[in-house]
Amino acid sequence: MADYDLWHHGDREVGEGLVDLAVNVRLPVPPAWLRAKLAAALDDLAAYPDVTAATAAVAARHSLPESQVLVTSGAAEAFTLLATASRPSHAVVVHPQFTEPEAALRAAGHPVHRVLLSPDDGFRLGDVPEEADLVFVGNPTNPTSVLHPAADLLALGRPGRLVVVDEAFLDAVPGETESVAGQPGFAVLRSLTKTWGIAGLRAGYVLAGESVVDGLRAVQPPWSVSSLAAVAVVACCRPAALEEAEKLAVAAEADREYLVSGLTALGVEVLGEPRGPFVLVRLPGADGVRERLRENGFAVRRGDTFPGLDARYLRIAVRDRETVDRFLAAWQEISSRSAAWLEE
Amino acid sequence: MADYDLWHHGDREVGEGLVDLAVNVRLPVPPAWLRAKLAAALDDLAAYPDVTAATAAVAARHSLPESQVLVTSGAAEAFTLLATASRPSHAVVVHPQFTEPEAALRAAGHPVHRVLLSPDDGFRLGDVPEEADLVFVGNPTNPTSVLHPAADLLALGRPGRLVVVDEAFLDAVPGETESVAGQPGFAVLRSLTKTWGIAGLRAGYVLAGESVVDGLRAVQPPWSVSSLAAVAVVACCRPAALEEAEKLAVAAEADREYLVSGLTALGVEVLGEPRGPFVLVRLPGADGVRERLRENGFAVRRGDTFPGLDARYLRIAVRDRETVDRFLAAWQEISSRSAAWLEE
Repeated sequence: MADYDLWHHGDREVGEGLVDLAVNVRLPVPPAWLRAKLAAALDDLAAYPDVTAATAAVAARHSLPESQVLVTSGAAEAFTLLATASRPSHAVVVHPQFTEPEAALRAAGHPVHRVLLSPDDGFRLGDVPEEADLVFVGNPTNPTSVLHPAADLLALGRPGRLVVVDEAFLDAVPGETESVAGQPGFAVLRSLTKTWGIAGLRAGYVLAGESVVDGLRAVQPPWSVSSLAAVAVVACCRPAALEEAEKLAVAAEADREYLVSGLTALGVEVLGEPRGPFVLVRLPGADGVRERLRENGFAVRRGDTFPGLDARYLRIAVRDRETVDRFLAAWQEISSRSAAWLEE
Repeated sequence: MADYDLWHHGDREVGEGLVDLAVNVRLPVPPAWLRAKLAAALDDLAAYPDVTAATAAVAARHSLPESQVLVTSGAAEAFTLLATASRPSHAVVVHPQFTEPEAALRAAGHPVHRVLLSPDDGFRLGDVPEEADLVFVGNPTNPTSVLHPAADLLALGRPGRLVVVDEAFLDAVPGETESVAGQPGFAVLRSLTKTWGIAGLRAGYVLAGESVVDGLRAVQPPWSVSSLAAVAVVACCRPAALEEAEKLAVAAEADREYLVSGLTALGVEVLGEPRGPFVLVRLPGADGVRERLRENGFAVRRGDTFPGLDARYLRIAVRDRETVDRFLAAWQEISSRSAAWLEE
């Protein structure tokens, strides 16, 4: 099954001097209020990290008991903890999606069964084998940008099955609709990375039943979450931060519509109904387009490392209108040049 | 074997307003040059972490190829990675020592065989069963402060056996003597936490053969080391930082001798030949003394959670002379009061 490079991530496609539409982090730097909190915390680094306050802040933000919260060193650590703590008899990863769940399951020695959703029906959530006792889905899904209805996810619930929903991008969806946080039999992963420009800090968390959280905590290295990540979690769970995130989500929605219109005007096929801060496109010769975009200063994410996709797909991060305008202009330039070349 | 609380660490003994002689972190805050580097790096947090430069810096510092270096989220992560990546048939932990190796092995489902060193011969490294294929030793050892000769460690080497030496405190030993870094069949763990006052940041690394490093990397979550930790690794591997660490180590040695003299003058038994930035003492009623020290504003580390030790032991961190003077005065006050009480 080592048919896709599951260890390829968008950060490898960013290069010196390139405008980055490859990585799904939305802010170029953390906001000033967050940087100030982190700067102040630099004086407290001699103490070992303590996630007590961060755990309480997450619990309050989601109206869940603290026993159902595990703060993690980014959502990526959560996949490893889930893979290490579980002994699944039939693990399923619903693709295309972020490749880490499958990579973590494989690293832990678990066979992985893939369910491939189809671009033909907008990557609608399909059948998962009845025997699956551990299922990974993304919502909204990276890289398709599709937001599955909560009802479709809840329909995957079964006694003896844990459904893990990667909601790392859900705070980019206005109103955070379709969340299954707090539902029995479901584990929800969240990340602060994308909205707050702190991918470098590693801050995320798991919301799940108490026994799942206890099992994950038992295999989590001690002090796994740095004290700065813990500070960020508290800061980003404040009501003022949640309001700001909602405004950013609404703005990102408008920016996405702008990007989709522009791409469509250029005759580029945008797949599914994008709801996240990135879109998936399909076009012949996508790989060549990606290379020429790089030559023109723009990095986009290749699609062919995602199971279920191939070399015709590209993922493009939503950016502000000015950046999108420059990006679309570069794309058009490339297309007309290659059209001219074809006509020669 | 759940006879000791392996999950108890010194940070739990530190309390509001207490002078901390419980935790082995030496600087109360990171040095100004390190804080400046970290503060500057806050603007780059939107990017995913990249340990390329940190790996190169560690390799250069130890004159080893980069393929023999794995940067980790603190030394604690390294124990979890070792436990997860290995399938030992006979794992041995040499006690008394830091409890994380045993905790990590147990969490990964591996049975643990204990080799207990004896205070009677100064915790000299003793026999390890021939069948052991994975052995954990500390050097200098937490909590005994004993520095095993490199020759004794190398004598533990066997074909088919990996010896893991936790050298988290070796940079507090002038000249970093007795290191086994780079020796075939050995994995060495290092930490930046103690010397540089950055326990909150989680920064350490493993030095081991290429196949061991590859095995650990395969189970390490992606982006496990934060970008700030990576910045700290680079900064603390600079020759100027190494010189400063050496000076701190020499100063800590003098402070330790001062502490040992003071304790001995009070009639307190100091065990072994302490070489690390902390000492182990044994006295009847140690637990009561610890409680009374707390009441008088000083936190020391209980010894009874370390396999091989019991309620008669305390671990005391080396601090500057002024702090040591105040600490010893408090101890004397407590002793004379309890002596007076006994005579009443």
